[in-house]
Order: sequence, then C-alpha cells, then structure tokens
Amino acid sequence: MTLHFEDVEVGTTYEVGEYAVTESEIIAFAEQFDPQPFHTDPEAATESMFGELVASGLHTLCLSVRLFVTEFVGGHGLDNMGGLGMDDLRWHAPVTPGDTLSLSIEVAEKRPSESRDDRGYVTFDRWVFAERDGEREEVLSVRSHNVVGRRD
Amino acid sequence: MTLHFEDVEVGTTYEVGEYAVTESEIIAFAEQFDPQPFHTDPEAATESMFGELVASGLHTLCLSVRLFVTEFVGGHGLDNMGGLGMDDLRWHAPVTPGDTLSLSIEVAEKRPSESRDDRGYVTFDRWVFAERDGEREEVLSVRSHNVVGRRD
Repeated sequence: MTLHFEDVEVGTTYEVGEYAVTESEIIAFAEQFDPQPFHTDPEAATESMFGELVASGLHTLCLSVRLFVTEFVGGHGLDNMGGLGMDDLRWHAPVTPGDTLSLSIEVAEKRPSESRDDRGYVTFDRWVFAERDGEREEVLSVRSHNVVGRRD
Repeated sequence: MTLHFEDVEVGTTYEVGEYAVTESEIIAFAEQFDPQPFHTDPEAATESMFGELVASGLHTLCLSVRLFVTEFVGGHGLDNMGGLGMDDLRWHAPVTPGDTLSLSIEVAEKRPSESRDDRGYVTFDRWVFAERDGEREEVLSVRSHNVVGRRD
C-alpha cells in the first residue's frame, strides 16, 4: 500500500475508468437484485417512465464501487480498511446498454480516529459519468465514508 | 398493482424476509463488484480489521433491495416507478456466511408530484437485520426515495 491516511489530501481529485455496460449484464444484475420490468424486460420497459431498458441504479452504484476498488484502491494503493456508509446517493439519469462509465473521486474530508492510532476516516465525493455518442453525462453522485490505514 | 401512492400510509411498517447468505455467494459478489481481500479471501480476511470473511456492505445493500423488490414491491403490489436516491446508508455490523437477512420498511414521508398527476414521492426507512445463533442484529440502515404511481 502506498496511499495511507497521511498521504490523502483534501481537495485532490482522481479520475478513473472505464467500464462498458451491456444489455445482458443489466438484465442479469437486475434479475438477481432488482427484478423490475424496466430493468429486466426490454419490451415491458418501453411502457415504464424510462421508455426503454435502463440499468438498476443499484447496478450503476455497484459498477462505480468496482471502479473505485479496482482502479483507485488497487491502482493507487489506497490502504482502505473498509466502509462505514454513504450519504446523498442520487441517480441523475438512467444508464442504458452501451454506455461507458467513468468515475471522479474527490477527497472531501479527513480526520484521524481518536480511539485507534492505526486508522483515520476519509470522506470521498464520487461522481459517475456515462459516455454515449460522444456526450458525457453525470448519472450518479454519492458521498462515501471510509476507514483508511495510517502509515506505521 | 394494489398499493398506489394514495394507499401508502406514513408510519406503516412492513416486515419482509428472509435471505440466507452463503460464503460462495459473498465471494462471487465481491469478485465482481468489491474485490478486496476481506470480502474475497477467507484466509487473508483474518488479518483485516474484521478478523474474518465478511460480505461487502454493497452486497448487503443489494440483498436488501432484492427483498424490497421481491417481497414488498412484488408481494404487496407496490406501484414502484423507480428510485431517485438514498440517504444515510450505514453499515452497523458485518454480515458473515450463514447469516439470514430480513428487512423492515417504514413509510417515512410522502408527497404528490407537483408537475405530474400520475405519481408521488415516497420516502422509506429501511433496516436490515441478520439472524445468527438465534440473535437478531441490525446490520444496515438506509433511507430511500421512490417514485410511486397514483391510482387512475
């Protein structure tokens, strides 16, 4: 691990990506965790408020966590010990088959643990963007609270 | 659909369940969406702050949405048009292999849409409990904002 609590600076932004979303994956995820017609059935979805098949918002969140873990925690060597929770999760626009997702992560706050000297708490603001036909649209935003290890 | 916006009453609580979580499922989910050693590797997990293999908190959230959709939306016929977001997601305790999850849902707030007469907004408070060795422990809480159809 190369990025410990001491190394994380408030205000720094990391851009990571990308992940291309397919229709079969949208349907498979929804059948497992969010089986509603507008996520599982392209034909029935045309009669929903979305007018077409859209990814479960939970699926978009999961893919953003995948990017966070594989590209940011893994790619930058963040000493992430775990998560405490999330706030202000909002879906701004639906994700549809063929979208390519990317993630922006900004370090919003940090404070050392008062009871344990091996860790601190870091709040990250995360934004997910979908690119389609050359346009980049914000589809999700969320604030996460993580436990990050301190350098020994 | 039998439960429209008009039928949902603030203060009503619905109890739904259950879902038994297995180790192989915890690992498979984490390999896809949250590949960190404490979620994917039982041996490496003993050296994490959890001391054992634990489900990704995201996995617990996904299973709670599955219960919400299959048992509440499906079971009670809620006319759920989609989700806007979630607030105050907190993981209170880890979920481990063998836990059986259940979900409490309370209608916290509701208001009709001002611009569209076919829908309203309903806020649900949700709590996930894990039962192990006869003990029931709160493992997750979250507040969700949903769009619910009005009766014609």
